[in-house]
Amino acid sequence: MKTRVDINCDMSEGFGAWMFGDDTDAKMMRFVSSINVAAGFHAGDPSTIARSVRLAKEQGVGVGVHPGFRDLVGFGRRHIDATSTELVADCLYQLGAVREFARLNGTPLQHFKLHGALYMHAARDEEFATALVDGLQTVDAELPILVMDGTVIHRAAQERDQPVVREFYADRDYGPDGTIVFTRDVGMLDPDRVAAKVLQACQQRTVGAVDGSTVGIEFESVCLHSDTRGAVELMTRTRHALDDAGIEVISFAT
Amino acid sequence: MKTRVDINCDMSEGFGAWMFGDDTDAKMMRFVSSINVAAGFHAGDPSTIARSVRLAKEQGVGVGVHPGFRDLVGFGRRHIDATSTELVADCLYQLGAVREFARLNGTPLQHFKLHGALYMHAARDEEFATALVDGLQTVDAELPILVMDGTVIHRAAQERDQPVVREFYADRDYGPDGTIVFTRDVGMLDPDRVAAKVLQACQQRTVGAVDGSTVGIEFESVCLHSDTRGAVELMTRTRHALDDAGIEVISFAT
Amino acid sequence: MKTRVDINCDMSEGFGAWMFGDDTDAKMMRFVSSINVAAGFHAGDPSTIARSVRLAKEQGVGVGVHPGFRDLVGFGRRHIDATSTELVADCLYQLGAVREFARLNGTPLQHFKLHGALYMHAARDEEFATALVDGLQTVDAELPILVMDGTVIHRAAQERDQPVVREFYADRDYGPDGTIVFTRDVGMLDPDRVAAKVLQACQQRTVGAVDGSTVGIEFESVCLHSDTRGAVELMTRTRHALDDAGIEVISFAT
Amino acid sequence: MKTRVDINCDMSEGFGAWMFGDDTDAKMMRFVSSINVAAGFHAGDPSTIARSVRLAKEQGVGVGVHPGFRDLVGFGRRHIDATSTELVADCLYQLGAVREFARLNGTPLQHFKLHGALYMHAARDEEFATALVDGLQTVDAELPILVMDGTVIHRAAQERDQPVVREFYADRDYGPDGTIVFTRDVGMLDPDRVAAKVLQACQQRTVGAVDGSTVGIEFESVCLHSDTRGAVELMTRTRHALDDAGIEVISFAT
Repeated sequence: MKTRVDINCDMSEGFGAWMFGDDTDAKMMRFVSSINVAAGFHAGDPSTIARSVRLAKEQGVGVGVHPGFRDLVGFGRRHIDATSTELVADCLYQLGAVREFARLNGTPLQHFKLHGALYMHAARDEEFATALVDGLQTVDAELPILVMDGTVIHRAAQERDQPVVREFYADRDYGPDGTIVFTRDVGMLDPDRVAAKVLQACQQRTVGAVDGSTVGIEFESVCLHSDTRGAVELMTRTRHALDDAGIEVISFAT
Repeated sequence: MKTRVDINCDMSEGFGAWMFGDDTDAKMMRFVSSINVAAGFHAGDPSTIARSVRLAKEQGVGVGVHPGFRDLVGFGRRHIDATSTELVADCLYQLGAVREFARLNGTPLQHFKLHGALYMHAARDEEFATALVDGLQTVDAELPILVMDGTVIHRAAQERDQPVVREFYADRDYGPDGTIVFTRDVGMLDPDRVAAKVLQACQQRTVGAVDGSTVGIEFESVCLHSDTRGAVELMTRTRHALDDAGIEVISFAT
Repeated sequence: MKTRVDINCDMSEGFGAWMFGDDTDAKMMRFVSSINVAAGFHAGDPSTIARSVRLAKEQGVGVGVHPGFRDLVGFGRRHIDATSTELVADCLYQLGAVREFARLNGTPLQHFKLHGALYMHAARDEEFATALVDGLQTVDAELPILVMDGTVIHRAAQERDQPVVREFYADRDYGPDGTIVFTRDVGMLDPDRVAAKVLQACQQRTVGAVDGSTVGIEFESVCLHSDTRGAVELMTRTRHALDDAGIEVISFAT
Repeated sequence: MKTRVDINCDMSEGFGAWMFGDDTDAKMMRFVSSINVAAGFHAGDPSTIARSVRLAKEQGVGVGVHPGFRDLVGFGRRHIDATSTELVADCLYQLGAVREFARLNGTPLQHFKLHGALYMHAARDEEFATALVDGLQTVDAELPILVMDGTVIHRAAQERDQPVVREFYADRDYGPDGTIVFTRDVGMLDPDRVAAKVLQACQQRTVGAVDGSTVGIEFESVCLHSDTRGAVELMTRTRHALDDAGIEVISFAT
């Protein structure tokens, strides 16, 4: 049974004059222990990044970089058939950009988490996953990568001793094999059910699968996507449930 | 009389499938001691940056970041009426991105030089110049800024003890007051005259002005723009003139 | 006294996954008679344009093109120091793009209105204004331009017989000379005052200026900016006031 | 045996300050009868489009639109996993933009040809091909689509009576089944062999396949890619060979 857990959430997902909903960053930041900062390719212009990182620093939240495909109009959700060399360069570029804002705020860069279609690409593609981990080994061999348990990048990181942090997805369904069931549209989730699901995951290390079975899971961080409908409400309820159960929400890096 | 001088040149100015002329980077890199790496906003995608920085490392050339306005179609030559806060965030973003590729190649980031219209903006605008130097003070107080002698950013850097490197512009005309004469189109320059001009600058610390007078100049680095017509020929001839005169071309940071 | 008036509003101002607030387009479309469709440079990707134009067609609303500076991150609010030739090409590109979606929906392109900083540039810059009107004369000499009364582009259009439609700005303050008072931030406006102001403008062709005086105004269309805070409420109240006073809201092209 | 043939070539492939090689447009334009104008998504900013279309008009060359994926850095060569709805909107946007410059120059838009990875997507994907042809049917049912013989979009266009123009690829190898052999890098081709191959295709309607066999081919236009290495030389030699053989190079639309 966990007495402490990390919660991570995507932030800095505006672009220029646009943001998702009504200033999600400020609302979500109070409930999480780690943020994934969109780095300019799928969302997040420099001014937005600057604000998000400063806010995180003020609230004692860990700052990770959240590189995505160069696809602003598609929000990084669409796969682009790029070479691994291109994609690793894109990732290091985004990593450096966000790291500089961490430096500006006197806080270390805490972790690396890929976004959207690029996250899925690294989960499946051996060539990209290994090229990426090799790149990270060179620039920062201590930087933890947030991963889905058992994926290609998870193994690639383990083989090279790049630290990993496994995620539990509060707003995704699980299959009987313990992997996520992909759906085009997550729909509107019930905050109480999400909160209960996270609590069970923390306390019993299990999750109820879509076929009614209960499966074991391993993780060090809970992920709740900021673009899931009603994300602020889901997050609020989940955080309260953890607080009430005496589970401390604290960064994995602490 | 100088027995050594730095030559800096803009590099990494391609974007994706495009480059200026026929692989200028590889041709110019042999003659210079420092490069200014376009950082993605006016030119220079991550893959191009990766190649340029690796090439510079291999050839022992110093790597600086070359931030510009977010203006790919205008190559950063057009002023954009952005706030200082936005522009400083844009600069730090680009700085971090290039710094990461320096780190990847095990070489320190050597300097900071603004590009095009943003270089001119910092030369004139007190608010931007001071905000930028303040930002650099926080992230890297030892990082030299390449500047035009006597400009607003030159003074702002000096007042804050941020190191500066003053430039002599091989491919620009000088007025009798020792400042550059701006022209929309530099035109085709005579390589022998450019080489002689640089040699005189290094040996006598003077330059012939457009009115026929001779004026004194101070500088630590010679700048030759890679997008000046015939840049490779200008560079070749200039470098040979310096070599023949026994003036060592070596980075200011060495 | 007017018994009918056009109301125009900017639409299609999302980009990819982002929109302003909660689907402003659908909410505002019911109250207006003309829309200005953001055309991809400062906002409005093709899919968003397609949706906005189809919605306008369904609701019998006139479709205009709303070209802006190529400045997505700045939402077209920042001046870019581009040449008139570049800017006219940018405008015609955006014009053609939106015209094609009008054609797709079997509705003519109704008007041309510049956005943000480009609107202001045409209001002041003789060279751009005349080059733009000359371009419009060639591609569509019957296409009305929405303008501020007495501006440079207003006169340029009149001299060349390009039709013009003058605007009254519901959400801007007026000076005693009948021109708009520019402010960085419009702030939160009182819906009842905005509605009363529009009603007075329609019925008496006057507006209360910031110095307390009452000045005469001429216009054929009322503009209410969709990015003014509380725009939906301002629009709702204004429309109801016009309806109650028996003033028909109908496109100037009808 | 053909006594006349169309030659089409991609043009307007610069972006801002960048172009491919040394003004390929002006050099190639003299030899072709039709051009495919890059429309801003993978290459071709409005100012570049304006110049290319004006040049085409002056030289009596037919102007087609050449829509590509929104992928400037990848030059439209990388597949993006977008929906058909998105892609059709992207295509119509680009179509309208280029059509406006045709209108500006008093010349009709002659044809529609997809670029790079999007060309291949339409060749294979039923859903996109049919959605695209349906869109073209609505906006311009007379606009010919340039296609590869026997592809999905070829059939989709035929079924809906959208005109098609089949292409012969001067700079690609053919397999024994009469389809193109895809290679990552086309390499440096022999201008005499390319010229002879085009001549044979025009005179005998056959092409030598990679296995040594000779296969029959049907086409109305010869395509030579402007980004193939040595494209200007290939084009020059090919055109001379056709001229010498008395085969007139003239647009299919004439």
